[in-house]
Amino acid sequence: MTPLQRTPGTAEIISIGDELLIGQVVNTNASWMGEQLFANGIVLSRVTTIGDSEAELHQALDNALQRVQFIFLTGGLGPTSDDITKPALCRYFDTSLVFNEEAYSFVEALFARRGLAVTPRNREQAMLPANARVIRNNYGTASGMWFEKDGAVIVSMPGVPFEMKPMFSELILPEVKALSQSDFFLFKTVMTTGAGESMIADRIQAWESALPPHFRLAYLPQPGIVRLRLGAHHPDKAVLEKELADQVEALCRLIPEYVYGFDEAMPEEVVGQMLAENGLTVATAESCTGGYLAHLFTSVAGSSRYFRGSVVAYDNLVKTTLLNVDANILRQHGAVSEAVAIEMALGIKRMMNVDYALSTTGIAGPDGGTAEKPVGTVWVGIAGPNGSKAIRFQLGDQRDRNIRRAAIAALNVLRLWLIEK
Amino acid sequence: MTPLQRTPGTAEIISIGDELLIGQVVNTNASWMGEQLFANGIVLSRVTTIGDSEAELHQALDNALQRVQFIFLTGGLGPTSDDITKPALCRYFDTSLVFNEEAYSFVEALFARRGLAVTPRNREQAMLPANARVIRNNYGTASGMWFEKDGAVIVSMPGVPFEMKPMFSELILPEVKALSQSDFFLFKTVMTTGAGESMIADRIQAWESALPPHFRLAYLPQPGIVRLRLGAHHPDKAVLEKELADQVEALCRLIPEYVYGFDEAMPEEVVGQMLAENGLTVATAESCTGGYLAHLFTSVAGSSRYFRGSVVAYDNLVKTTLLNVDANILRQHGAVSEAVAIEMALGIKRMMNVDYALSTTGIAGPDGGTAEKPVGTVWVGIAGPNGSKAIRFQLGDQRDRNIRRAAIAALNVLRLWLIEK
Repeated sequence: MTPLQRTPGTAEIISIGDELLIGQVVNTNASWMGEQLFANGIVLSRVTTIGDSEAELHQALDNALQRVQFIFLTGGLGPTSDDITKPALCRYFDTSLVFNEEAYSFVEALFARRGLAVTPRNREQAMLPANARVIRNNYGTASGMWFEKDGAVIVSMPGVPFEMKPMFSELILPEVKALSQSDFFLFKTVMTTGAGESMIADRIQAWESALPPHFRLAYLPQPGIVRLRLGAHHPDKAVLEKELADQVEALCRLIPEYVYGFDEAMPEEVVGQMLAENGLTVATAESCTGGYLAHLFTSVAGSSRYFRGSVVAYDNLVKTTLLNVDANILRQHGAVSEAVAIEMALGIKRMMNVDYALSTTGIAGPDGGTAEKPVGTVWVGIAGPNGSKAIRFQLGDQRDRNIRRAAIAALNVLRLWLIEK
Repeated sequence: MTPLQRTPGTAEIISIGDELLIGQVVNTNASWMGEQLFANGIVLSRVTTIGDSEAELHQALDNALQRVQFIFLTGGLGPTSDDITKPALCRYFDTSLVFNEEAYSFVEALFARRGLAVTPRNREQAMLPANARVIRNNYGTASGMWFEKDGAVIVSMPGVPFEMKPMFSELILPEVKALSQSDFFLFKTVMTTGAGESMIADRIQAWESALPPHFRLAYLPQPGIVRLRLGAHHPDKAVLEKELADQVEALCRLIPEYVYGFDEAMPEEVVGQMLAENGLTVATAESCTGGYLAHLFTSVAGSSRYFRGSVVAYDNLVKTTLLNVDANILRQHGAVSEAVAIEMALGIKRMMNVDYALSTTGIAGPDGGTAEKPVGTVWVGIAGPNGSKAIRFQLGDQRDRNIRRAAIAALNVLRLWLIEK
């Protein structure tokens, strides 16, 4: 056995839950936290996934305490009997559950916002190990808990991603960063759409190989989007900031047509902001995206300032009767065609009386493809104050990915038109 | 530290690769293998994810060898310098790399199939630790390796999923099954909607506490849905099947109004199947769900058989002009009201000429709430052959969750109406 010393600025994750071991849930929490830690200069050296077992948890904690400064636990904090984390931590720290006023006030506040009374079972969630410092959970009843032992920090969080993520990034990570002693670490994420990972890699190859050794570039693809995360560390913060800004600028100069934003901005946010700032309105007519494009627009808070509405014309009859697509054009060119995409965009633009209109028509799959129009064929139509056009995209063969990619492609068509203007 | 004994029929996974720790790649290999092992009665007790570090690998192996019969390694077998598994295993077993004729013949065969000659870098991939039994890789150049130590089995596989998966399921799992002596294991997942985790827990408390000790229940919540996974093990498969079926039936009897399906079926699939089987059609009129309800319907392949389309009426003007919502009703009751939800459902039903229509109107947040109609207030309207109605839901305070939960609530309103019929 190779002995390892506990190193400042290092971390381990212990993910708890039977569902993670039997393949029912993929451990995306761990990869998300890994990304956050990496972006903040904390070295994640291990992820241990265990079932709902006290003995396993104790052993994993023993091992982790020998090695790292920070231990992050997720899962097992719910109100049901398979949630073992709190009693197991009590026995690990040789303490007991006590009623925590602060935790209870958070639960009360949460229920009050929902207009509900606290149930006895939820009141139990304010019972925390006596040595725990409570961490507020704004989106659920299970508080986070902060423990310290022999100079190491152990943080327990709920396993539900939408409760864990804001707790981790807003309340835990800043403290962890302050406690760890490392170089300054900065990163910037360049958001791109319209090109695949390898196409971008080919374009930026020379620049990437010439990056100084304290820089690191990660390609983070998701349907329709490739995030390029450039990180670097340096003892001098001002030097680091200048270096990073210069390299990001150099990167953007190499792929200007693909870069649509920075730092996790989604296309619907970038496009929404452009519309809102210019007092413009938009509507969509959707066939293959089936409402997903409207969903992206309306997922942004405040989108009612610029988004008027959508017609999902899944049936061809809806295309002709509601969107006024000419039945002859539909017959002659087929629903998945340049002409129909343009007609749909013009139809919804008139109907919703908006400045810009987007349309989608395509074959999402798995069925419906032909030799001429295989699965993944998508036309995006756009109509605006100065005319209309449609652009063809050839996407892949997975239905859900095609829907997402088509919607993002449509947003990008509008973005590029707004810039051209 | 709680000592654990090595148990026959138990396994651990050690996933190797820096990319897994910085969040660049999600560890789907581990969850896939977990599912395979679980389905074959092997108990996966832990997944350890480490970086490309020999010391970490040695330590993880030491720990795993104390506990389990089978240790599965993935990753670090590629031809580049950051692939540390083979040299690290050599030092761990105190042996050295030797040229393996059998491994080389597999590489040769692979290249021959592709019409290529073997390169020196690929020839190196036939250098294996002297104590390894080679496992054929039909889809890549890195052979798998089988080691035995003190009665335990250590298997090393490539990390690339499409190479690892067939190797694991076709060549490794059958041997592992034969070597392990364990009970049969079965599980069934009951899908529920309409109640939170703690509400269900309260309802099934007596039944849950009376479960035999070889049964295990897990609550797996996600927005709008709680999955109840009931698993059990037993040496006699027929007894186990009967016991599990009986307990699932007992569980369903306790919460019939919440159970909508089994085994990962999503509400849009269950509802879609009911519509398709009865030759019925549906359309939606959406305000607060902003197209997400249509997206759920159309995310199911073949949904064009029953889903006609949707109008996303984000703007009130769209509600009156397109959906024919009475402007007086809108003014008098407000957009978020029972009356408007019903008008919207009736409007889209007429317009799309469908059997059933769903509508949503509510306050998704974060802004727009009032004392009377706080954020999270949602009305779901439904219209069908026998009339119309609307139901009020009080959801939470997170925009994205409210959108999802409202869409799932709407699907459930339709499901319950179709059952009543």
